[in-house]
Amino acid sequence: MPQLAPHIPSVPGSGIRRVFEIAMKLDDVAMLVVGEPDVPVAHHVIDAARRAWADDKTNYTPNGGITPLREALVAKLARENDVLVDLEQVWVTIGATQALHQCMGLLLAAGDDVLVPDPGYTTFTMNARMLDANPVPYSLKPSHDFLPDFDELAGLVTDKTRAIIVNSPSNPLGRVFDETVLRRLLSFAKQHDLWVISDEVYEYFTYDEKHVSLASLDDDDRVFSVFSLSKTYAMTGVRVGYLVTPKGMAETMRTVQEAQISCVAEPDQFAALAAVTGDNQPVADAREHYASNLRLARELLEARGIDYLDPRGAFYLWIDVSHAANGDVASWAEDFLLEKRVAVAPGSAFGRTGEGWIRICLAASPETLTRGISALPSPQAVPAA
Amino acid sequence: MPQLAPHIPSVPGSGIRRVFEIAMKLDDVAMLVVGEPDVPVAHHVIDAARRAWADDKTNYTPNGGITPLREALVAKLARENDVLVDLEQVWVTIGATQALHQCMGLLLAAGDDVLVPDPGYTTFTMNARMLDANPVPYSLKPSHDFLPDFDELAGLVTDKTRAIIVNSPSNPLGRVFDETVLRRLLSFAKQHDLWVISDEVYEYFTYDEKHVSLASLDDDDRVFSVFSLSKTYAMTGVRVGYLVTPKGMAETMRTVQEAQISCVAEPDQFAALAAVTGDNQPVADAREHYASNLRLARELLEARGIDYLDPRGAFYLWIDVSHAANGDVASWAEDFLLEKRVAVAPGSAFGRTGEGWIRICLAASPETLTRGISALPSPQAVPAA
Repeated sequence: MPQLAPHIPSVPGSGIRRVFEIAMKLDDVAMLVVGEPDVPVAHHVIDAARRAWADDKTNYTPNGGITPLREALVAKLARENDVLVDLEQVWVTIGATQALHQCMGLLLAAGDDVLVPDPGYTTFTMNARMLDANPVPYSLKPSHDFLPDFDELAGLVTDKTRAIIVNSPSNPLGRVFDETVLRRLLSFAKQHDLWVISDEVYEYFTYDEKHVSLASLDDDDRVFSVFSLSKTYAMTGVRVGYLVTPKGMAETMRTVQEAQISCVAEPDQFAALAAVTGDNQPVADAREHYASNLRLARELLEARGIDYLDPRGAFYLWIDVSHAANGDVASWAEDFLLEKRVAVAPGSAFGRTGEGWIRICLAASPETLTRGISALPSPQAVPAA
Repeated sequence: MPQLAPHIPSVPGSGIRRVFEIAMKLDDVAMLVVGEPDVPVAHHVIDAARRAWADDKTNYTPNGGITPLREALVAKLARENDVLVDLEQVWVTIGATQALHQCMGLLLAAGDDVLVPDPGYTTFTMNARMLDANPVPYSLKPSHDFLPDFDELAGLVTDKTRAIIVNSPSNPLGRVFDETVLRRLLSFAKQHDLWVISDEVYEYFTYDEKHVSLASLDDDDRVFSVFSLSKTYAMTGVRVGYLVTPKGMAETMRTVQEAQISCVAEPDQFAALAAVTGDNQPVADAREHYASNLRLARELLEARGIDYLDPRGAFYLWIDVSHAANGDVASWAEDFLLEKRVAVAPGSAFGRTGEGWIRICLAASPETLTRGISALPSPQAVPAA
């Protein structure tokens, strides 16, 4: 049997999925491990999809998506993100996942470097490795208030560095970068002539903080923006997102989209159209649900003296379990799952900086959250080594 | 502004889509340019999708697909293709398109060679270039009865050759490779230790010829098979296909799928499940519709003395217009569209060997077909140069 391409074995698996898959085989697990909203899809979205199916809207669409959806996204980007683009800059994708995969494939050749946040979303690293490129982690550490350290960043750039990935509101941290930080990131990218990939899938979920889109600050066409409907409208399994490109890339995008997926399923695009143009109350309700869960989680953690990063966005909590994890939080999370029947994501799945931390998802019922957090080891209870 | 990865500008656009896009801007065009079935999706498929939406089946699924669909595909592969696999070898994808993109990404590193049929489906070449690999065309010429020339093939292999793509029933030719040819291709691949990618999306549409799956002849795990529901069930815009891998690749597939798309949309998977497990009469009806169109087209072409390759599979006709094309069939097809309002795919879009030929799609109404073929230049009418 021949061999796979030599770089493929270096693509790391997802440490989140590992826990998830063990959890799926157990009964009665408090599931706090994946980013799956626990609210239903709005009726108007479901109705639109059912109508599209009834009308046999099951044909190839233009590569970039159906025109009314792209127009609705252009309007949304102007209204909500202060990002002014034309229709040919908006490409409907299989969730943010494919938008990211596609965009990285356009920018990176084998051997190139890309700066990725650490801790950061796992597929940044996976996609880099799939392209035989090098993901170079930049840390978001407690000592820097979980913000980029620009001295460190400057030291990481080489002549092979092509792009930096920025994720705000961030997964797993829930950190929201304000305009000052974003402007510094952009000027850093300019200085080193890097592309910027801005992952904004949690744009609608911020708490007492304004979400600013990087592309709204971009004055020389270096920002690709990755958006998703999955988290906003609780439709993760409908797989609709979009990539917003700099100007003048339509021909390239058409070709790459044709070769990767041809187009997103037509009924799913009609569902997306209903979501983007319909009543936004379900999104506000979901935000309040996560905010309420966050208040509950804070109380529980504080009562037990467990340290955590207070999130300003997304729907995760980043919790310090270094007092119990013994320098190997991945193994600890597996043991914790088997013993306590609580599934959490080990911080190390998001990068080296995540060692000693876990991520829990706030998109759960208050009962599940309470059960999960109550099972966490409190520092007081752990005997000194 | 920084530059795209240096190999990206070498990814060729689709010469089919170019004609298609001009055609979309004109009125009253006889559309014979794209491979879009003109039959409706079966009711039981539409009902299943609508039910899935009503039940809010809109969550992430396992990366490989929902278990009942994978089980149904395992059963179908055993029953219809004589291919015996376990569930972890079947990966539900965004049509055959993503299956191909994914599979090529696993096998090819930058600088590798892959043998692609010429004429052949355009995305073989596009995906190779996107990976910075070299698509090396092997010809399917009239002088070899449109079958692979094994002397030529042997001469094309270098130490960089990693895989060969085989497509039967073939697009654009409608050629069906019999078991003898397939066994020779497989032993050629073994001799040079190549992977084989077998694109079988037209498996259900053969005329007086049996479709044989390459993987059913594979005895040492070197064949990846690409299948699609798009053409079989006339659901091109639902975007469900599947990749069947050799044994032992589940971990790699899970990771790559997670990074590329996460999973196929859940409602679309339920539609696919209904298609694969439901009444097959609509498929038989579609086949008869294409066969009847083929008989009509043959009569029209023969009456006008126009040469063509009599297809044994798929739903295309490969027609010789070299007497009119003047060595540039791409320009000729554009002029023909503008003058006659008939959209056809220029053969050169499928590779160099396609110069002087066009592909027309038989999945159209008899009226459209008649109008289109009647507009073609007959050799008698063309004055000698």
